[in-house]
Amino acid sequence: MIIVMERLVPEEQIKMVEKKLEEKGFNVHLSKGVERTIIGAIGERTQAIMDAIETMAGVEKVVPIVQPFKMASKEFKTNPTTVRVGDQVIGDGSIQVIAGPCAVEGWDKFLEVAQMVKSAGATMLRGGAFKPRTSPYSFQGLEEEGLKILAEARRITGLPIVSEIMDPRIIDIVASYVDVMQVGARNMQNFFLLRELGKCNKPILLKRGPSATIEEWIMAAEYIISSGNEQVIMCERGIRTFENYTRNTLDLSAVPIIKQLTHLPIIVDPSHGTGKWKLVAPMAMAAVGAGCDGLIVEVHQNPSEAMSDGPQSLTPENFRMMVDKVQKLHAAMKQE
Amino acid sequence: MIIVMERLVPEEQIKMVEKKLEEKGFNVHLSKGVERTIIGAIGERTQAIMDAIETMAGVEKVVPIVQPFKMASKEFKTNPTTVRVGDQVIGDGSIQVIAGPCAVEGWDKFLEVAQMVKSAGATMLRGGAFKPRTSPYSFQGLEEEGLKILAEARRITGLPIVSEIMDPRIIDIVASYVDVMQVGARNMQNFFLLRELGKCNKPILLKRGPSATIEEWIMAAEYIISSGNEQVIMCERGIRTFENYTRNTLDLSAVPIIKQLTHLPIIVDPSHGTGKWKLVAPMAMAAVGAGCDGLIVEVHQNPSEAMSDGPQSLTPENFRMMVDKVQKLHAAMKQE
Amino acid sequence: MIIVMERLVPEEQIKMVEKKLEEKGFNVHLSKGVERTIIGAIGERTQAIMDAIETMAGVEKVVPIVQPFKMASKEFKTNPTTVRVGDQVIGDGSIQVIAGPCAVEGWDKFLEVAQMVKSAGATMLRGGAFKPRTSPYSFQGLEEEGLKILAEARRITGLPIVSEIMDPRIIDIVASYVDVMQVGARNMQNFFLLRELGKCNKPILLKRGPSATIEEWIMAAEYIISSGNEQVIMCERGIRTFENYTRNTLDLSAVPIIKQLTHLPIIVDPSHGTGKWKLVAPMAMAAVGAGCDGLIVEVHQNPSEAMSDGPQSLTPENFRMMVDKVQKLHAAMKQE
Amino acid sequence: MIIVMERLVPEEQIKMVEKKLEEKGFNVHLSKGVERTIIGAIGERTQAIMDAIETMAGVEKVVPIVQPFKMASKEFKTNPTTVRVGDQVIGDGSIQVIAGPCAVEGWDKFLEVAQMVKSAGATMLRGGAFKPRTSPYSFQGLEEEGLKILAEARRITGLPIVSEIMDPRIIDIVASYVDVMQVGARNMQNFFLLRELGKCNKPILLKRGPSATIEEWIMAAEYIISSGNEQVIMCERGIRTFENYTRNTLDLSAVPIIKQLTHLPIIVDPSHGTGKWKLVAPMAMAAVGAGCDGLIVEVHQNPSEAMSDGPQSLTPENFRMMVDKVQKLHAAMKQE
Repeated sequence: MIIVMERLVPEEQIKMVEKKLEEKGFNVHLSKGVERTIIGAIGERTQAIMDAIETMAGVEKVVPIVQPFKMASKEFKTNPTTVRVGDQVIGDGSIQVIAGPCAVEGWDKFLEVAQMVKSAGATMLRGGAFKPRTSPYSFQGLEEEGLKILAEARRITGLPIVSEIMDPRIIDIVASYVDVMQVGARNMQNFFLLRELGKCNKPILLKRGPSATIEEWIMAAEYIISSGNEQVIMCERGIRTFENYTRNTLDLSAVPIIKQLTHLPIIVDPSHGTGKWKLVAPMAMAAVGAGCDGLIVEVHQNPSEAMSDGPQSLTPENFRMMVDKVQKLHAAMKQE
Repeated sequence: MIIVMERLVPEEQIKMVEKKLEEKGFNVHLSKGVERTIIGAIGERTQAIMDAIETMAGVEKVVPIVQPFKMASKEFKTNPTTVRVGDQVIGDGSIQVIAGPCAVEGWDKFLEVAQMVKSAGATMLRGGAFKPRTSPYSFQGLEEEGLKILAEARRITGLPIVSEIMDPRIIDIVASYVDVMQVGARNMQNFFLLRELGKCNKPILLKRGPSATIEEWIMAAEYIISSGNEQVIMCERGIRTFENYTRNTLDLSAVPIIKQLTHLPIIVDPSHGTGKWKLVAPMAMAAVGAGCDGLIVEVHQNPSEAMSDGPQSLTPENFRMMVDKVQKLHAAMKQE
Repeated sequence: MIIVMERLVPEEQIKMVEKKLEEKGFNVHLSKGVERTIIGAIGERTQAIMDAIETMAGVEKVVPIVQPFKMASKEFKTNPTTVRVGDQVIGDGSIQVIAGPCAVEGWDKFLEVAQMVKSAGATMLRGGAFKPRTSPYSFQGLEEEGLKILAEARRITGLPIVSEIMDPRIIDIVASYVDVMQVGARNMQNFFLLRELGKCNKPILLKRGPSATIEEWIMAAEYIISSGNEQVIMCERGIRTFENYTRNTLDLSAVPIIKQLTHLPIIVDPSHGTGKWKLVAPMAMAAVGAGCDGLIVEVHQNPSEAMSDGPQSLTPENFRMMVDKVQKLHAAMKQE
Repeated sequence: MIIVMERLVPEEQIKMVEKKLEEKGFNVHLSKGVERTIIGAIGERTQAIMDAIETMAGVEKVVPIVQPFKMASKEFKTNPTTVRVGDQVIGDGSIQVIAGPCAVEGWDKFLEVAQMVKSAGATMLRGGAFKPRTSPYSFQGLEEEGLKILAEARRITGLPIVSEIMDPRIIDIVASYVDVMQVGARNMQNFFLLRELGKCNKPILLKRGPSATIEEWIMAAEYIISSGNEQVIMCERGIRTFENYTRNTLDLSAVPIIKQLTHLPIIVDPSHGTGKWKLVAPMAMAAVGAGCDGLIVEVHQNPSEAMSDGPQSLTPENFRMMVDKVQKLHAAMKQE
């Protein structure tokens, strides 16, 4: 890290900063200008040390140099991570398409939509059994009953299941039914949950928080990986901005950035990322253009009867058209 | 709610929307213009019904009219809620000043700073025992050991204790030591946690999430209240914006807005709200000017040795000067 | 528009609002519920009338229903607008690629890069003669000398020229040299400039302001169109958000939204939209996936010698590779 | 500035960066760690040089150290700048209260409100003659006719006049009528306008742009000062964030920050900063608590008849109550 001293500070304050850095095990180099001294400190940076230095007399600011994540970084592991889910692999150059309704609403309806999305080209199923809802008066999911429906749908369709986990107390239960455990955007910094998921042997789909920087999001992955679970799939689902025509602003630049900074695969959720079904197909196409490893899309056989997120759900017919276009685009991406 | 139909839609689509609204128990009124029809629907709105209507053929948009919160609203309870904590009352026109270090770091140090802030005018103590940290490699708190230190400091100083709860599995433990349980900004939409806290008989300090709208924040309070606990204290601590000179942008307009929309008391955290100790006192003063019921401020006897959040911590001496000014300003606010 | 009255307002206040609306020429419909009355008002909405009603006694809020733009809307003109520039057409289903350095730095260098981008597949040239710079101490452009270089490069390469206009006093001068006049992001709401450009007979490239909503951006186009010039090309170039890994957050959902709401063509600027050359090609691909009509990209033969925006400039070689991929993707988009 | 090299770069790339920095006149210091080299460069930084270095082979990033503004900085001029306007002084520890309608709508109405706000304690008058409006169909102001009304109101009331200038072509005309020329938020980076205003001998009220960082805002002041005019008054008026309950988010931390970084006075606009008249008085109080030098507030004798910005205008009676409270608070602020 770099320590920028204030203008014309007494020599003694510079010495004290130097001393503290050396105590903490840093290699220190001074750059003295006419008005200002800058101190380069090379060593194992932590937030606590940066904070400590920043509060010392004469220090104007502390500038971090090295990124704070390690095990998620490309420097730590140069080969891209691939995550196997059933017969599918995420991160191997294929496009995975995960589809299904926002919430599991009952057995017949779920099986119907599961078969529809399978025939349209989906490679995995999604469906919420536990739902995080802004209002305590909204439908909160079928809970374990929903998980059973998901597992049964897997048996019939052969497609792996993705579902959200919100509560560290029920990880074992959820893990016993599903193939991929999803951490929702609102829980991206629920550090207790992340650490527990790091002890599981299941792939984790880690959604970006609506106000998380890319660095914070990678740090959330670092929590999971450093607790023992490397099977992390990143998922961009839109960030909160001033624009309110869309529910969120889908930040597709996250796709190449995650690929440049980490070894993890990344998929995109154009349903939450826009909140409007008419925008889902164009943004799915854009995500493929950006180089993502997959899509997660909400599909409902009758969006106007959906118990949640109807306005952003595709009909099975629109989903089929989207998959066709996505596959054509992906084929064009791969030809050299 | 209001349903805006697209231009020149067939009569039949209008009829279908009308029918669905009536089925759901709404009172329906049509406004027909030359090009466009608008439908007013009066009844118990839920997100699911709004979503369902929005996906029907011919519907351009659905506009909510009534605010989604009930038990937190001023219409539900016109008298301001006051929350008793030990000998203190939050929301009765007084200014409560909650102070202490970000994290409890050990018995001697905590007792020392507790006595310093008490003598400077603090009315409650704060200190973290469980710390949410962006990095898995940062200090995560002393955990139950920290809670014991907090409780012992209360015994000696007589000041009530505020501390953060992050995990629904340990609510009983935390509740057995502290007087006010704080929900941190990152957990504002941890709905499982909120519901469990609604079953407690302890005051809850509910921090605003960094990207939460005021409406979402009030809905989080609604989760707690509707689960049985009315003792909710709102806490504005800054929102995430493009400005990065400060750690967050302290949104002081939240103070009068919460007072206009709800019956709940509201305090302000100028330490997290700015991230820089030089801005803490001016923003504390601004918060008093805006009409808040209290402040929560980080104080450390030696900020450059703090294990977390040193750069935003006041020294006890600076804290004492801040409290003096705050008290003068508060006195001026109350004279008519 | 919809007027939502407060709970339990006296009949008299409802009457006064009704009366005022009728005076202003609105068709008024009341919806009375048990607690609340809602008034639907159909007619020519303006901001002034909305504001006036919102301040009347008993009014809780006024909700606009109809979008404020007219001449830019798809309802006003259902056929997509195509803009002819030299031999090229923007908006006819082709992909236009506009390329060149941020600033014109001299004759030899500009001609060299112009020929390089032409051979790589660019269809138009860009280059700034007047540069808006955050600092008064930065290079401000070659001014008219730069315009002459641009015009001469067109003569030699045959490619049309796009350049920025910042000052209403020199529109005639700029218009005499260039083929498309660009309104920069910082001038998107320079209404005097927009109105003057509406009186020109030149295509206008209208960049989105960094904090402009899509609606405000379309209103800026409305200024130009309503002053007499329909040849407006929208350009998404990123919005300002909390994320600071990228210079801006490129909002690609703007592409399908502009196509759904207006008849105007839209291009994308992945150079300013990301600020990092390594992200330019992936985001150009994403933009094509989203369905844009073209790209505007910064290219410099030696980015480390560029007088501005080097870090986001492609080398001619990288540009050539990007164009190849863009063309493949665009071909895949068009096959049905 | 600091140049961070990539991990394990060849010695030759380090040498090339060093050489380039020395050519540009920088004093260079290397800090070599095991994996990474950091280069400290002390000298006159410009954006162009930073950009150039950032694009060189082996460079990971360039970190600016010194703030980019000079003449606006406290280091350049340690005494606070005071701006004299008629008999009033902004920045001398007093609270100036500038009040009046958003737009001048006619002689009788303006004179009436001018006399009302004077009797309530306003120390200057505001009123728009040229209005920047999002829609081309909104009222755009009375133009020169409005300026004449303003000047005449000054003659009668004795209060100085503040009014907005939008177009560099009419600076002389506006300057001949008003005492303070206001640069509106949308023109904060209209650099041509700023430079022309720097050649005037009139105080300039510089509103912060809705998406301007504090650094960019100070750079806008730097444009004016470096062109010859030191009489700049900063005005915080809210920034654009995701929160949409308020029109903007008033960033009161700007008040102490501007005072810490520059020698310029700063006032606050709680009318635009909130967009709701019920929030104006509390936020005016908060601004005084934060230590501002004045307020600018919209007042209209009949907000529901205002031609613009009615919802955020106070009635003269509410304005009087606000001024009373502001004066009490300001008195409390000044007693030591």
